[in-house]
Amino acid sequence: MGRSVKKRSVSRREVVLRRLESLGRRFCEQIEKGVFPWIEMKSRSTDNIFYSPELRQYVLGDRVVRRSSRIVRHLRPFTQMVWTAYFVKELIRQRKTSTLRDVYYSAQAYDIFFKDQVESDNIITDLETVTGFPREDLNVFPEERSAVFGDLTIEYTVPGYEGRRLNLTSHPDGLMIGPALTNSRLIRTGADKVIVIEKGAMFTRFIEERVYEKFNAILIYTAGQAPRSTRYFIRRLNQEVGLPVYIFTDADPWGMHIAMVIISGSANAAHLRDLTTPDAKWAGVWASDINSYKLPSEGLSDIDIKRLHELSRDPRYKGELWQREIKTFMKIKKKCELEAFSRYGLTHIVDKYLPERLKELET
Amino acid sequence: MGRSVKKRSVSRREVVLRRLESLGRRFCEQIEKGVFPWIEMKSRSTDNIFYSPELRQYVLGDRVVRRSSRIVRHLRPFTQMVWTAYFVKELIRQRKTSTLRDVYYSAQAYDIFFKDQVESDNIITDLETVTGFPREDLNVFPEERSAVFGDLTIEYTVPGYEGRRLNLTSHPDGLMIGPALTNSRLIRTGADKVIVIEKGAMFTRFIEERVYEKFNAILIYTAGQAPRSTRYFIRRLNQEVGLPVYIFTDADPWGMHIAMVIISGSANAAHLRDLTTPDAKWAGVWASDINSYKLPSEGLSDIDIKRLHELSRDPRYKGELWQREIKTFMKIKKKCELEAFSRYGLTHIVDKYLPERLKELET
Repeated sequence: MGRSVKKRSVSRREVVLRRLESLGRRFCEQIEKGVFPWIEMKSRSTDNIFYSPELRQYVLGDRVVRRSSRIVRHLRPFTQMVWTAYFVKELIRQRKTSTLRDVYYSAQAYDIFFKDQVESDNIITDLETVTGFPREDLNVFPEERSAVFGDLTIEYTVPGYEGRRLNLTSHPDGLMIGPALTNSRLIRTGADKVIVIEKGAMFTRFIEERVYEKFNAILIYTAGQAPRSTRYFIRRLNQEVGLPVYIFTDADPWGMHIAMVIISGSANAAHLRDLTTPDAKWAGVWASDINSYKLPSEGLSDIDIKRLHELSRDPRYKGELWQREIKTFMKIKKKCELEAFSRYGLTHIVDKYLPERLKELET
Repeated sequence: MGRSVKKRSVSRREVVLRRLESLGRRFCEQIEKGVFPWIEMKSRSTDNIFYSPELRQYVLGDRVVRRSSRIVRHLRPFTQMVWTAYFVKELIRQRKTSTLRDVYYSAQAYDIFFKDQVESDNIITDLETVTGFPREDLNVFPEERSAVFGDLTIEYTVPGYEGRRLNLTSHPDGLMIGPALTNSRLIRTGADKVIVIEKGAMFTRFIEERVYEKFNAILIYTAGQAPRSTRYFIRRLNQEVGLPVYIFTDADPWGMHIAMVIISGSANAAHLRDLTTPDAKWAGVWASDINSYKLPSEGLSDIDIKRLHELSRDPRYKGELWQREIKTFMKIKKKCELEAFSRYGLTHIVDKYLPERLKELET
């Protein structure tokens, strides 16, 4: 039983390596032709960031910046980018991973100087823009960790584990989403949906109440704002495996935005594709649930209200559901947490709310 | 190969259940005798908290508070405690877990009123004091999650997994430390030490560089200050399995204190035992390493220095190593991160620093 996942013919790792190699070859050819090496990339300045209703995410406009080793003040960022491209290529080749912080320190081993980590982070983003790959594909991973649990069999590609398979129900506290999972092949699943949860305790509750069996779901715990590798994994489950994605957060502007960033990404990733899941759905807790389920709530703070005003003008929030819920928040001036359902017993959220909401969204 | 772990004859779960039952029986007997039920517990006010050099942790003194249902202003906290004892007993009986937040909301399902979560948290701490068990034993778990990786075979006791075994090298991103792991039996290990790491990226580095094989170590990731269930798990590895524990943190007062809380606990857990690992060792990064390994560093901030002054007067910091390192911090006025070793290449920390430090501490 269960559905098998189609294999990709060329591994993503191969594609990334080729892209980096072609970048290096480009510079060599320029030098051979007697030209100072240069590169062009789309500008990431705020006046070049637009929302694309087709892609349902922010994208960069047509403005381009050119960086040339001929220009003295470009020499420093140009050199830094060439070194960074070399460094991440070595990471990928040796199947090692790193972090933004690590890249900053590692540069010193090569006598490449970064004033501070802001400078090195920025060069990594340049390289993302030039290659089109998020830094996780360049083996630069976030410090934060989230987790997964459910009937999905993966096959590792990391050294020492090549070809080994694991079903993600193996450990009922959940398995961390790190480089090994991110780079694994998705082999087979019996699940027919993905449920994403903001909070660790609720993730544990959902496992204890066997949501993965009762609702045939793969469970993902984001630990607040989902790290990019987690967003990429959610996208893979949606696009490669074809599973619908439902996101549960606290009922407040911050929870709502955790869902939105999974769905439509963030403005500072406008230079990237493949990090969003436009068909994922924010499944609650909605402002309107506070009244209809009579949930214990707190008043919105001034900061909450300010944030709601910002979101109401954000192009990602144009959809009917979002506008309705923002208006409801403004009207009732209340917020509430996922745990508020415990007011009716610990299993109420799983026994009543979850099936009702899924039914509503599936039709 | 590997060492087997001795089985405990009565499960901890049984012991906790019996303790809660005897508490209930006590109240019933008091009522049958025609006495208003009452309870005594040690006072947790700061003037009753002392450092015990023998136990190497904070403990409560002899002062006792009495709470009686005969006294009107005691009636509310007394009733709250009786309900909470009932609630956690049901949790344990049904093998469900919960959080402090959940307990607060759940009370409303029983028309037990808590003004806010501070009030319900405090009642849970009362119940810890009365029973002597940390709230994790009462199935009230923290929201935070940390992780483990290494050659340790565990056997689950949670529903649906009873008797199932897993080796904790199964998933190379690490396995979350939650209720299932906390309540599992430790069966067998080939490791001869535990290495605790503050940061997720360094935890991943240690896995990638096969520290678990090269140094025969179980790796634990604390995600900053270790959650209590993680501290309890580290203690079990030390006491039940007999493994020495080495803790690696950033070289600053906050990192040092992450190590200290694992070793000697915190003042607000003075009413509890079994959460500390007094023989665990802070293995670095030490202030003195910044100079001897020529590590990239930053200046200490005013808040760092203030914190160092506090720590230098703290009874837990009396030991020679601690005093020496606090003095070194004050003298060099520098701090540095675990990642700073990447200045000499990504594997330097594993190839050079780790073996040198372990050798130094083992002799």
